Amino acid sequence: MKKIEVGVLGATGMVGQNFIRFLEGHPWFELAWVGASDRSAGKPYAEATAWRLDGPMPETVAKLVVQECRPETKAPKLVFSAMDASVATEIERAFAEAGHYVVSNSRNHRMEPDVPLLVPEINPDHLGLVAHQHRRGWKGAIVTNPNCSTVALTMGLVPLKPFGIEKVVATTMQAVSGAGYPGVASFDIVGNVIPFISGEEGKMETETLKILGEFAGDHVEFLPAKVSAHCNRVPVLDGHTVAVSVALRDKPHLKDLIHAYETFTALPQKLKLPSAPPKPVLYLHEENRPQPRRDAGRGNGMTVTVGRLRTCPVLDYKFVCLAHNTIRGAAGAAVLNAELMYAQGLLK
Amino acid sequence: MKKIEVGVLGATGMVGQNFIRFLEGHPWFELAWVGASDRSAGKPYAEATAWRLDGPMPETVAKLVVQECRPETKAPKLVFSAMDASVATEIERAFAEAGHYVVSNSRNHRMEPDVPLLVPEINPDHLGLVAHQHRRGWKGAIVTNPNCSTVALTMGLVPLKPFGIEKVVATTMQAVSGAGYPGVASFDIVGNVIPFISGEEGKMETETLKILGEFAGDHVEFLPAKVSAHCNRVPVLDGHTVAVSVALRDKPHLKDLIHAYETFTALPQKLKLPSAPPKPVLYLHEENRPQPRRDAGRGNGMTVTVGRLRTCPVLDYKFVCLAHNTIRGAAGAAVLNAELMYAQGLLK
Amino acid sequence: MKKIEVGVLGATGMVGQNFIRFLEGHPWFELAWVGASDRSAGKPYAEATAWRLDGPMPETVAKLVVQECRPETKAPKLVFSAMDASVATEIERAFAEAGHYVVSNSRNHRMEPDVPLLVPEINPDHLGLVAHQHRRGWKGAIVTNPNCSTVALTMGLVPLKPFGIEKVVATTMQAVSGAGYPGVASFDIVGNVIPFISGEEGKMETETLKILGEFAGDHVEFLPAKVSAHCNRVPVLDGHTVAVSVALRDKPHLKDLIHAYETFTALPQKLKLPSAPPKPVLYLHEENRPQPRRDAGRGNGMTVTVGRLRTCPVLDYKFVCLAHNTIRGAAGAAVLNAELMYAQGLLK
Amino acid sequence: MKKIEVGVLGATGMVGQNFIRFLEGHPWFELAWVGASDRSAGKPYAEATAWRLDGPMPETVAKLVVQECRPETKAPKLVFSAMDASVATEIERAFAEAGHYVVSNSRNHRMEPDVPLLVPEINPDHLGLVAHQHRRGWKGAIVTNPNCSTVALTMGLVPLKPFGIEKVVATTMQAVSGAGYPGVASFDIVGNVIPFISGEEGKMETETLKILGEFAGDHVEFLPAKVSAHCNRVPVLDGHTVAVSVALRDKPHLKDLIHAYETFTALPQKLKLPSAPPKPVLYLHEENRPQPRRDAGRGNGMTVTVGRLRTCPVLDYKFVCLAHNTIRGAAGAAVLNAELMYAQGLLK
Repeated sequence: MKKIEVGVLGATGMVGQNFIRFLEGHPWFELAWVGASDRSAGKPYAEATAWRLDGPMPETVAKLVVQECRPETKAPKLVFSAMDASVATEIERAFAEAGHYVVSNSRNHRMEPDVPLLVPEINPDHLGLVAHQHRRGWKGAIVTNPNCSTVALTMGLVPLKPFGIEKVVATTMQAVSGAGYPGVASFDIVGNVIPFISGEEGKMETETLKILGEFAGDHVEFLPAKVSAHCNRVPVLDGHTVAVSVALRDKPHLKDLIHAYETFTALPQKLKLPSAPPKPVLYLHEENRPQPRRDAGRGNGMTVTVGRLRTCPVLDYKFVCLAHNTIRGAAGAAVLNAELMYAQGLLK
Repeated sequence: MKKIEVGVLGATGMVGQNFIRFLEGHPWFELAWVGASDRSAGKPYAEATAWRLDGPMPETVAKLVVQECRPETKAPKLVFSAMDASVATEIERAFAEAGHYVVSNSRNHRMEPDVPLLVPEINPDHLGLVAHQHRRGWKGAIVTNPNCSTVALTMGLVPLKPFGIEKVVATTMQAVSGAGYPGVASFDIVGNVIPFISGEEGKMETETLKILGEFAGDHVEFLPAKVSAHCNRVPVLDGHTVAVSVALRDKPHLKDLIHAYETFTALPQKLKLPSAPPKPVLYLHEENRPQPRRDAGRGNGMTVTVGRLRTCPVLDYKFVCLAHNTIRGAAGAAVLNAELMYAQGLLK
Repeated sequence: MKKIEVGVLGATGMVGQNFIRFLEGHPWFELAWVGASDRSAGKPYAEATAWRLDGPMPETVAKLVVQECRPETKAPKLVFSAMDASVATEIERAFAEAGHYVVSNSRNHRMEPDVPLLVPEINPDHLGLVAHQHRRGWKGAIVTNPNCSTVALTMGLVPLKPFGIEKVVATTMQAVSGAGYPGVASFDIVGNVIPFISGEEGKMETETLKILGEFAGDHVEFLPAKVSAHCNRVPVLDGHTVAVSVALRDKPHLKDLIHAYETFTALPQKLKLPSAPPKPVLYLHEENRPQPRRDAGRGNGMTVTVGRLRTCPVLDYKFVCLAHNTIRGAAGAAVLNAELMYAQGLLK
Repeated sequence: MKKIEVGVLGATGMVGQNFIRFLEGHPWFELAWVGASDRSAGKPYAEATAWRLDGPMPETVAKLVVQECRPETKAPKLVFSAMDASVATEIERAFAEAGHYVVSNSRNHRMEPDVPLLVPEINPDHLGLVAHQHRRGWKGAIVTNPNCSTVALTMGLVPLKPFGIEKVVATTMQAVSGAGYPGVASFDIVGNVIPFISGEEGKMETETLKILGEFAGDHVEFLPAKVSAHCNRVPVLDGHTVAVSVALRDKPHLKDLIHAYETFTALPQKLKLPSAPPKPVLYLHEENRPQPRRDAGRGNGMTVTVGRLRTCPVLDYKFVCLAHNTIRGAAGAAVLNAELMYAQGLLK
């Protein structure tokens, strides 16, 4: 099979670097184009970029010449967006209008009615919204993935959805890699907790309801539930841990929920999408798991781990869930979205 | 004023060391006796103890000869107990029976009906239970303070009590010093979160209701509320942070709650007890506080800080509170209890 | 005694904040003036400054109106400089020329022949250079303190100076607070070591020789020794630890060196300068000390701790020394310099 | 090819777990036997072991029944020893006497004259000592690998050996995983440095000279050099970083040394041993590398990284080197030793 050429918008930043690392050796996609700010444009990627991830920069990208983030630059049809929120709105629109499929990690368009906020294991049918973006006069489309902490929460909740999710109280302990670079100053976080992340709680509280909502033709009916988020930064490198209490309409037994976790599988697994982990949600029975340093990397960072399911004296049940924030919560999320789009014939 | 001689049971361990450091230079109490295991008995404290706290061991204690933990060893009438739970039950009883006032940080007797689980700012009247311990045939008594994470939660909640606390969901991020020594292995916690602390959630869920309950002569009527705790260990040295959602019967306005926090004061402040901080609960208005490394030490570690009060989509309000776990949550808590007992004439 | 008014240049930055905290309650000096960039000038300090240190901003400074860093702004005669190196050269000169005594923590003028690089316990006579600054046509003068890691090294070495220091190999493990704010990104240092600090090794290798050199009227004869520095950043908040190997001309016995450490005292102790700790160098006999978190704060952060003196198979001896980088290595260093200047009549 | 059955002595401890993880999927060796203390013997490995490494326990080992550490238990001819030093001496001898090849990570026999202290890239000819162990009446033999910090140092030095290594001053910053489990208490190392590791400096100073020494038939002529080690523990998970100053007899140019690093290769690479990394020593040209979190995992943890080579004012040159302590410094080291032994026909 001939690989599909892809591009990355915002390729030199931290999220962009995560895209480039995640795409290395991808069986379907080949990185052929990198876009960044005007300051970087024209330089080889290796020169324009301060590589901050573990291990060396992939050799294949090092020599690519950085382009301006304009559709006229011969960008491939499929572009991943790792753009900063301050500039993503206009640029992503311009690419979609010009016929590109923009698979974006940016928050800017997530809550627009005709833009899918996609998690392939949860709401693959939401991709149907794409057809409605043509009403905007666009030849292409924008497809988004959730905020990194929202992914952990929604994947931890989705096996419980059949029992009727009514209320959720979620407290996060989030890794520093989620803040980009330079992100959190070490002087602020060494041996410390910062109980605040700007804008994060609102994103978790609203995105969750859209993701778990029902596709209704030209829009999504939000899940009629209430979500409360407490977001905290902790001195962890990768992996957002979430302590969750949940009220369930059907008042199921604990063993029914464990069974739901242990048997959960979804469309990406059925389609054997390249980035889909064998177990999208893995329930760990040890009493002190999941832990970010030990479990965030499971399934190449794409498996969300859950543990400690037990009754909650206030709502019905409580548990802990965990996702790798820069993989399942960002670059891997978007790539899986693109794989689903390809598998469903959207990128042809 | 002549100082009152006091002793410390379990003086060589970490909690014992915290007692010794906290008592240094105390205006009312003078450390005159230290008890520990038979292995240490007979040795000077400096020789029997691997001092692990910052700064040097107080010189006054260094030469005290460690005694066995038996009442016959001429221990003072007032003894603080820093004993390990595995041995505290019998030893504390033996001292109380023999006429000592045992002011204990151990969990063993906290939930007994005639034992005060005392936080002087919250429930000073619970000291009335002491009289009922004489029915056991004891000449002395046992008075306890709560588990370290419970102190943070109850002090964070007490200003809201007039509005009718009905439901509480509390997620902790707890410091490693709360686990004693050697406690948490660094291999387990460097760059990690451990979402489990053995027995901790149960303690928070039950102790909170007793502490906030009503004194009823020979017992305490527990607060008729529901508490759910999620307990986590994070790589922080000192200070337990708690993210709290709370439902309040009276549905007050946010400004009423802020006012309640800002005006909260209590009996220890009125009595000017030596270890009582001017502000027992301090509300911080910065958007990202309290933080353990920056705020746990306020008021010499005796002030509990609160911040980020805001509406909760599931319960009514949510906030963050923080207490220094080895001071307000252990040694300082017990010493404040003893100060209250002395001020109320119990130790004469 | 009427207090002497002082100012702080660069008062809003991290070093400036450390000056302000260190000066709070100072028995001789009273903070009366704060200067910062034009952007901050005209605002109250509390409004112009994002306070980042533990505990609250001192109330006395909160209402001071920030001034521009120009001598015409009625700055006091004595000003401490916490200026960034990018702007310190001209501004410090302008103040000195205009008659101010600039006691600077900046690196810019440290190595000029007529500028004292002062550590009061080591080279108080170097203050004699000040007289030679008048040749520049200045009415005031500039006096500097060393780089933070150099202070740890030179204070650790000075008790050995009588034995003839010939060669020094020093490897630092430096705290993140030494990098200012935002300084080191947490993504770079959580669970990591960065074996490089820009410009730091050169400063340690040259400043050490000037500090330990001999005052020769209008200049300093550098110590005729060789120093090699390896500088590393580690995930520690405060306190620079240095592992040192040293060759000594006189080949003394180990016990002579221990005696030298234990009996070392100096002029600031004799003069009882307010910030001079009783023990400027404290030798710790425990096998695993000094440690930054436990020992950097000794003597209010002004005592340098030393330990583990033992023979070195390559040079003669090796040991570990430690200094609090933002106190003994910055704000406290400069204030002690000013105290010495005052005690010697320079500020009248 | 039929795989060779191997066993692990001390399989349930941390070093043993590292062996088991490293051997998973090995192309030549198949784990068929696990031995541990009498307390564990008779139980399935999964039951006897608290698995502490990232990711799940390999399934292949989970069901193996733990054996006593006695040669009569049908242990394979090749056994890796991860035994604690307190028991390794007698048990390893018993196995060697009974005909087993004991490839040991324990320190107990490293310095015996007829026992190879083997690093395959440095001194493969030292394996010749094995023949002399038969004089002890042994049918088998003991082969050892160095202490974890010694591996980093000697691999960092070996490319310089042709220039005549005369003096070495080495300061380590060592990861907590090197201390086993529970190892370093988190209360001791969070935000801290411990400038002492019991016994470590002596091991580095003597082992280095044996490893870099010359095989002389029935013993090794130690390298006639002097080594001084300063050993420190830092809050890093994996990877020992070493800052090194070295004096070289031939006074080479810097570019000659860089060339030596860049062209260094050795017998394991020539033999294509399965665990031999393509680059045993990798020189990194970035100014701030190697860093443990980012570089320790290179070459599957078997590549030692070096950087920052520059002139040293006291000795001749200085540099930083880094090795993954539980892989290149322990389990991987021993497995590579066994691979060399097999490739040279010793295990037939």
